[in-house]
Amino acid sequence: MTSEQTLTKETISAAFMELQDRICQALEKADGTGTFREDAWQRPGGGGGRSRTLTEGTIIEKGGVGFSAVHGEATEATLRALNITNSPAEAPPTFYATGVSIVLHPRNPLVPIIHMNVRYFEMSTGHNWFGGGIDLTPHYVLADDARWFHQSLKTVCDRHSADYYPKFKPWADDYFYIPHRQETRGVGGIFFDYLKPEHAAHKADLFAFVLDIGNSFAPIYTHFMQQNYQLPFGEREKNWQLLRRGRYVEFNLVWDRGTRFGLETNGRTESILMSMPPQANWIYDFNPEPGSREEETLLLLRKGVAWV
Amino acid sequence: MTSEQTLTKETISAAFMELQDRICQALEKADGTGTFREDAWQRPGGGGGRSRTLTEGTIIEKGGVGFSAVHGEATEATLRALNITNSPAEAPPTFYATGVSIVLHPRNPLVPIIHMNVRYFEMSTGHNWFGGGIDLTPHYVLADDARWFHQSLKTVCDRHSADYYPKFKPWADDYFYIPHRQETRGVGGIFFDYLKPEHAAHKADLFAFVLDIGNSFAPIYTHFMQQNYQLPFGEREKNWQLLRRGRYVEFNLVWDRGTRFGLETNGRTESILMSMPPQANWIYDFNPEPGSREEETLLLLRKGVAWV
Repeated sequence: MTSEQTLTKETISAAFMELQDRICQALEKADGTGTFREDAWQRPGGGGGRSRTLTEGTIIEKGGVGFSAVHGEATEATLRALNITNSPAEAPPTFYATGVSIVLHPRNPLVPIIHMNVRYFEMSTGHNWFGGGIDLTPHYVLADDARWFHQSLKTVCDRHSADYYPKFKPWADDYFYIPHRQETRGVGGIFFDYLKPEHAAHKADLFAFVLDIGNSFAPIYTHFMQQNYQLPFGEREKNWQLLRRGRYVEFNLVWDRGTRFGLETNGRTESILMSMPPQANWIYDFNPEPGSREEETLLLLRKGVAWV
Repeated sequence: MTSEQTLTKETISAAFMELQDRICQALEKADGTGTFREDAWQRPGGGGGRSRTLTEGTIIEKGGVGFSAVHGEATEATLRALNITNSPAEAPPTFYATGVSIVLHPRNPLVPIIHMNVRYFEMSTGHNWFGGGIDLTPHYVLADDARWFHQSLKTVCDRHSADYYPKFKPWADDYFYIPHRQETRGVGGIFFDYLKPEHAAHKADLFAFVLDIGNSFAPIYTHFMQQNYQLPFGEREKNWQLLRRGRYVEFNLVWDRGTRFGLETNGRTESILMSMPPQANWIYDFNPEPGSREEETLLLLRKGVAWV
């Protein structure tokens, strides 16, 4: 299509579906034995999705790659969450939301957890915007991996705008923060929301950026899968991984606005909670030994670390 | 003391401390090998607590019995949560909150998870009230156990007011509900809040009720410990227990107002999250076999079941 035509929600949604296909194929190939099981679902109020889960793979222990395109009347909760005011006299606006959302929990504690999301939102009021991001949650922060990850994201961002990485990297630091632990979820990445097109060509540009982020996901994560999945680990590393997954659960259920919004507005619970790890552990007041690799990791779970 | 004297917060707090002592002693005795480890802590803004945890007991896998008595300036978040309005011109009111809070996760899936809380809240504005409750979360709902549990609570309630059980039982059904799963956390119990004394004698009566609930906890739970901990179970029951613990995590982190209030207002995280299980699992879209004991349990996790 040319940039003179305005992108429709159908075009965007179709591209997201294809993105889901490509990512699942790449992950299956990299995993070697795991295969995705698809669950197609309908949303009672309009639209639906394809939730794909892979469990007990060689590298991925539990992962979900979801696509959805849902629409309907915007409830008061939705409007409140979006800061959109609607006079009670008017008919409630309708919304359309489509996206791809991924969380992968690997077996090996030296392979990081990853999360990716790309989304497009459109209201009958005329508001429409893109959002998304990728962030990495290593159980053990390996500085080379974190640098390579951020450099990869910066490269994608820079292809579209030199402003993106400097803006979206701190946004991820702020978003993926666990206040009650005073630590970040992982080494961050990029996060962006409410990217509003100003005209048709701008919308095409924003969509090209969002798709580029989506397409960078598989090469980035399969790199970590292949590089790290055979690294040796023992009971100590496995126990630490299970505690770190506990933190992942805490972030997602207490603080993640997307998860909470979904659960509070009667979203499809199983699709929203595909992000949950297969197993998570809690130990009261666990403190790693001074100088250990576990303590080193905690010291790096801070906002504002300049990885590139 | 006589009912003519008004109970002070210090008296109430001291009684809660003793309650914590008695409960810990009773649980250690019933467990046989597990012992509580105490962590005394201070709250930067005022007050502190004694968090006691027991892990790797014979019957209890992980449990916490917390006492706290905290005070300080009521933040805006606190006032908002309590629906108390304070004019910006006035000095911010101070609060005092004291209580005992318990969650126990047993090893054997046929022993239920239990939660108990008794609390007293006082504001410098003159507002003061009691709250609390006990609720039971069996991994497998055993009807006889649920009936005995509710009958025990009703007996305690009836000693103080015939109105209590009929009012506090449905309150627990409503409070311990997981909307995104459309199921109750367990078989409920009793829950009450904002029990406001109208005069000194009434305050003594309310406190006597709250203490009676607190004192009923150990006999009730040690009954289940002793009765059920040697019941045979296999891998299937253990796996189901881990999934049910996942639901417990979901309730506490997404919906429990006490937990969320604590985490959002900079409470002591480790004490708040003593309620987390040692391990919890998630499986995408797990559905028990029709007619199985697991499915039977789900069918009983409903509001409004008349156990007595």
